[in-house]
Amino acid sequence: MSTRQLKLGFILHGVGPGWGDWRHADADPTASTNIDFYLRQAKLAEQGKFDFLFVADSVHITEKSSPHYLNRFEPLTILSALATATTHIGLVGTLTVSYSEPYTVARQFASLDHISRGRAGWNVVTSWLSGSAENYGKPSHPPHEVRYRIAAEHLQTVQGLWDSWEDDALVRNKASGEFLDPSKLHTLHHQGEFFSVRGPLNISRSPQGQPVIFQAGASEDGRNFSARHAEAFFTEGSTFESSQTYYADIKKRAATFGRPAQRLAVLPALRAIVGRTAEDAERLYSEAVALIRIEDALVALARSFNEHDLGQYPLDGPFPDIAHFGSESNRSASERIVRTAREENLTLRQTALRYASPRREFVGTGVQVADAIQRWFDGGAADGFILFESLPFQLDAFIAEVVPVLQQRGLFRQEYEHSTLRGNLGLEVPENRYTAARRQVA
Amino acid sequence: MSTRQLKLGFILHGVGPGWGDWRHADADPTASTNIDFYLRQAKLAEQGKFDFLFVADSVHITEKSSPHYLNRFEPLTILSALATATTHIGLVGTLTVSYSEPYTVARQFASLDHISRGRAGWNVVTSWLSGSAENYGKPSHPPHEVRYRIAAEHLQTVQGLWDSWEDDALVRNKASGEFLDPSKLHTLHHQGEFFSVRGPLNISRSPQGQPVIFQAGASEDGRNFSARHAEAFFTEGSTFESSQTYYADIKKRAATFGRPAQRLAVLPALRAIVGRTAEDAERLYSEAVALIRIEDALVALARSFNEHDLGQYPLDGPFPDIAHFGSESNRSASERIVRTAREENLTLRQTALRYASPRREFVGTGVQVADAIQRWFDGGAADGFILFESLPFQLDAFIAEVVPVLQQRGLFRQEYEHSTLRGNLGLEVPENRYTAARRQVA
Repeated sequence: MSTRQLKLGFILHGVGPGWGDWRHADADPTASTNIDFYLRQAKLAEQGKFDFLFVADSVHITEKSSPHYLNRFEPLTILSALATATTHIGLVGTLTVSYSEPYTVARQFASLDHISRGRAGWNVVTSWLSGSAENYGKPSHPPHEVRYRIAAEHLQTVQGLWDSWEDDALVRNKASGEFLDPSKLHTLHHQGEFFSVRGPLNISRSPQGQPVIFQAGASEDGRNFSARHAEAFFTEGSTFESSQTYYADIKKRAATFGRPAQRLAVLPALRAIVGRTAEDAERLYSEAVALIRIEDALVALARSFNEHDLGQYPLDGPFPDIAHFGSESNRSASERIVRTAREENLTLRQTALRYASPRREFVGTGVQVADAIQRWFDGGAADGFILFESLPFQLDAFIAEVVPVLQQRGLFRQEYEHSTLRGNLGLEVPENRYTAARRQVA
Repeated sequence: MSTRQLKLGFILHGVGPGWGDWRHADADPTASTNIDFYLRQAKLAEQGKFDFLFVADSVHITEKSSPHYLNRFEPLTILSALATATTHIGLVGTLTVSYSEPYTVARQFASLDHISRGRAGWNVVTSWLSGSAENYGKPSHPPHEVRYRIAAEHLQTVQGLWDSWEDDALVRNKASGEFLDPSKLHTLHHQGEFFSVRGPLNISRSPQGQPVIFQAGASEDGRNFSARHAEAFFTEGSTFESSQTYYADIKKRAATFGRPAQRLAVLPALRAIVGRTAEDAERLYSEAVALIRIEDALVALARSFNEHDLGQYPLDGPFPDIAHFGSESNRSASERIVRTAREENLTLRQTALRYASPRREFVGTGVQVADAIQRWFDGGAADGFILFESLPFQLDAFIAEVVPVLQQRGLFRQEYEHSTLRGNLGLEVPENRYTAARRQVA
């Protein structure tokens, strides 16, 4: 039995991650703002002993945006709503540092961490859609390397605010009338390049001390940011080999920052399709592929090329030479897409449809999908996965067919070990910086 | 039986609105960040058929802040958490326009309105503590009249974003693949003095169309803002006479903006103390007063004088001449305090203690408190009240002793009439501006 345990997240995305998912006969096309749908999925994932729920985000749409981008719950509110309907599963939300205030971000995640009694996580992103700036009164979207400087300072400020209160700052002595020990409430006085925040935060230190930091950077700047600051990495996981390379790279970078490899979970996206039989799975796969409209697949693909209009190229001609349209933040993705199309001689249509389809490797019976998961887990490509639901009720199928196999193999928990996200991910609660300083002086 | 019905809100404030409330033997001194305490109170208020829960806010503390300011849940997260644990009660949260982005505010309240299926309300405030600016990287807090210009433009922008989607914009036709009717998704293109927001909002129109707008302005600018924009007014309610004057004034101002008086609810704060007998109530009142420390009462009183240090004056001397320390936003409150102290020849100590104590008028049996409520309601001083819990389990007592009397008198509902806050407050769902424009053209 393996002592190293798989970590599993589940991404909540309303009408589904694919452009046509909502058209499936069993799909609820109102799911994106249907609280009952979210409650059902959250409770189900908790029954399946998943480590966490994950809510993605963006702050800019046009009428051409995909269905799940167009219309969706704001992450902090929906995660708070799910907090009181669950007891053990982590609650991870995306929030951009580009268009948010550290004081408010620190408050909202600390509040979620109190509400959930220690299950909050923050997926730190720098918004990469250039239209986002226009929703926040900014003349232009900052360039890539500046966005990561903003991110580092924003995160540092938020984490500083989370240490405003030492664990025992609230004395609450009814007899003496002493509510607070003022020597244990600390003012941050942050004055940086982008932010100036005095503090202290107006909410006491939360159960995890510091909510867990997730990140998903693929660029050079993004990887260094992740390796230095993040505790879990959400990766695209396009192939086994590219994931192995990413995995080794990120763990090596983390080591140079003095961070132990086992404290960093690399979690590729997993778009599994699970059937009770192999034929069943093939049928479901065909259903998933049939839902994809080529025009939607083109717009989805365009996200890796800074929303460059792909409709101008012949669909059945060779894939166009457009790697240079990839923005800094997804340059690695756009280059890989072009390279793969060249190597396999794919047309634009074939490339777009492949990009929009689930990977064949994770299509199969519970044992087959568990085999693929174990290959990645044992092969240095993943510490776990974040599951996307590619067809309705695939979370149900994954829990019924795949989870028991992983449990039998000793790869995944039978019961939650802890009631906090840090506990279940095997991460320590960081000591408050002021408490640590006092202890070192003493 | 009266057709006009009382509106009742309940303010959730953790360790209590008074400085010493947490010291009561029955008080939970951890209440401010105890989700179980909040869940219990929310469910209880819903059993009592209250119209809404109310969460106050501020964005600046020092080590001298009062216990319920120091440490508390952030409003949007706690209200979202309570949304899935309740079904009918409204969820109203304070959020400052001074230090927030309209796009994020619009998203979070629209998301709460979807999550709660139509129960969200926004208490629009302009932060009045000057230290707030320092938590948001601003060199100085804007002056009073600028804050209300900011407020008007911020609110206008948020309400514009809430109309981004017409009610039938999401077609969701599985056969044709048409998810959205792009002609019914609207881009705001707001360019104003303080904000520039393109839109559209990335969440569809919520069940109430527009979450309900609350306001609490007492100054000249604040009253005009309320009269023009707000649907419910939270007032201090210091005396019956001052409330009558405020009530008449605000309804008259609203009429000049063409707004019908019955669409505006004036709701003074109510710090009732209810006993099963009059003696019981007197004993509870004594308990409440005994919890007040004079040094805390002074700091609380200082809030009306822009945190001017009152400790420098003799406690048992005449009340000092300090009306000029009142900031613009609470000038009316500070002047009234000074005037009352002069007229009644009160010392600084007597003034501070009176200010920190519940009003005698609302101390008594269920019938006595119901009588006082009815006097205000029938006498043109209130359309309802927002109840503060001055002692532990006073919400229980109010629901057990006062609510049944109000119900017997036909002043308050036996059951919820609606499942939305607008429905229960008797407010219509505003028609989407673009739908209205199209209807008028046709």
